[in-house]
Amino acid sequence: MITLKIPEAAIVRLSMYSRFLGKKCKVDKNTISSEEIAKGVGVNSAQVRKDLAYFGEFGIRGVGYNVTSLYKQILNILNLHVDWDIALVGYGHLGRALTSYKGFRERGFIFSHIFDNDPQKVGTKVNGIEVLPVERLEEVIGKNRMPIGIIATPPDVAGEIANSFVNAGVQSILNFAPIALNVRSNIEIRNVDLTVNLEVLTFNSVLQMTNDVRKVGIN
Amino acid sequence: MITLKIPEAAIVRLSMYSRFLGKKCKVDKNTISSEEIAKGVGVNSAQVRKDLAYFGEFGIRGVGYNVTSLYKQILNILNLHVDWDIALVGYGHLGRALTSYKGFRERGFIFSHIFDNDPQKVGTKVNGIEVLPVERLEEVIGKNRMPIGIIATPPDVAGEIANSFVNAGVQSILNFAPIALNVRSNIEIRNVDLTVNLEVLTFNSVLQMTNDVRKVGIN
Repeated sequence: MITLKIPEAAIVRLSMYSRFLGKKCKVDKNTISSEEIAKGVGVNSAQVRKDLAYFGEFGIRGVGYNVTSLYKQILNILNLHVDWDIALVGYGHLGRALTSYKGFRERGFIFSHIFDNDPQKVGTKVNGIEVLPVERLEEVIGKNRMPIGIIATPPDVAGEIANSFVNAGVQSILNFAPIALNVRSNIEIRNVDLTVNLEVLTFNSVLQMTNDVRKVGIN
Repeated sequence: MITLKIPEAAIVRLSMYSRFLGKKCKVDKNTISSEEIAKGVGVNSAQVRKDLAYFGEFGIRGVGYNVTSLYKQILNILNLHVDWDIALVGYGHLGRALTSYKGFRERGFIFSHIFDNDPQKVGTKVNGIEVLPVERLEEVIGKNRMPIGIIATPPDVAGEIANSFVNAGVQSILNFAPIALNVRSNIEIRNVDLTVNLEVLTFNSVLQMTNDVRKVGIN
């Protein structure tokens, strides 16, 4: 067994490369250089080559990469050659933003179950999916082994929902509620705090003004 | 001048620590250990000490940290001891989710200008702020030196909005549109792609199933 630590930032960039390559496929382009990918995504070309090298050799020296083939290979690496079912809890503003965000469907993420505790929302349909009461989460999700659960609820109920997801056998959780979740399970939880990104900006922006050279970077 | 490279993940964690400490302040707790902070946030205590050490000595060995004082010092580090005005472009589902997300106001982020190109939205009020047409962005923002612009528009217009922000003197941009922005300026742009977080999950979750030990981590 090989232990290989891949920086999260490399996966984030692979995700960006594949989105860029997906567009290039549509314009019928055959080959592309690491420089062109780098320019399209806003990184340097050595970074592109290094990120791809974690997973194998994809290009031909002096020729570049076959666009369609590299696109498909990155989708394979990210496991996006298949569709992923998502169970969403919380159909407020954020839940609506997520279900109407075209990027998800384009990448093969499908909201197949939506839950809310508001009687006015329960029973309504979202892209053909009926919003179900939160009480039914474990029963419904437990039957359909779901890979991903998204929490888009207020923070006070997020922990409870996470536990229900775990009980129902959900394999990983993306949490948008501004609270760190600790569940008694080793399933993967990613906390997306919308304010954190702003706080990295405020940290950096004052440094810029004061000419301080401390600066944050993803390495 | 000292060059000190601080990992972005450390800033993200500081942001989490301060939110946790903010809650502890409210329950009238005086001192706290790095272990307690670590447990509350879901990291290990050595990490807490290391992150804080980038910025100075805050605790007393054997006693711990003063909760209120550490909370305020972290807010200072993140430059959150002052309020930050935000100009938002795009008042669709995501824009609504952002303006109604209580976490922003709690951390001192205030949506002071909102723009949209939908005539049905222009002129309506959001928390007392009138939604203005996008054409007026440069004129209005140019007069009020804005530190932060948020883009919550479809990807096809995001580049144009970013350029308008730059022309209007905005200092940093948080971009939620799923497209990498390249503007002719050295202002800071953070791209928040809501699907990227899911793709790190899909990458990791198949590894878990196959017992592959490659795994992504923020270092």
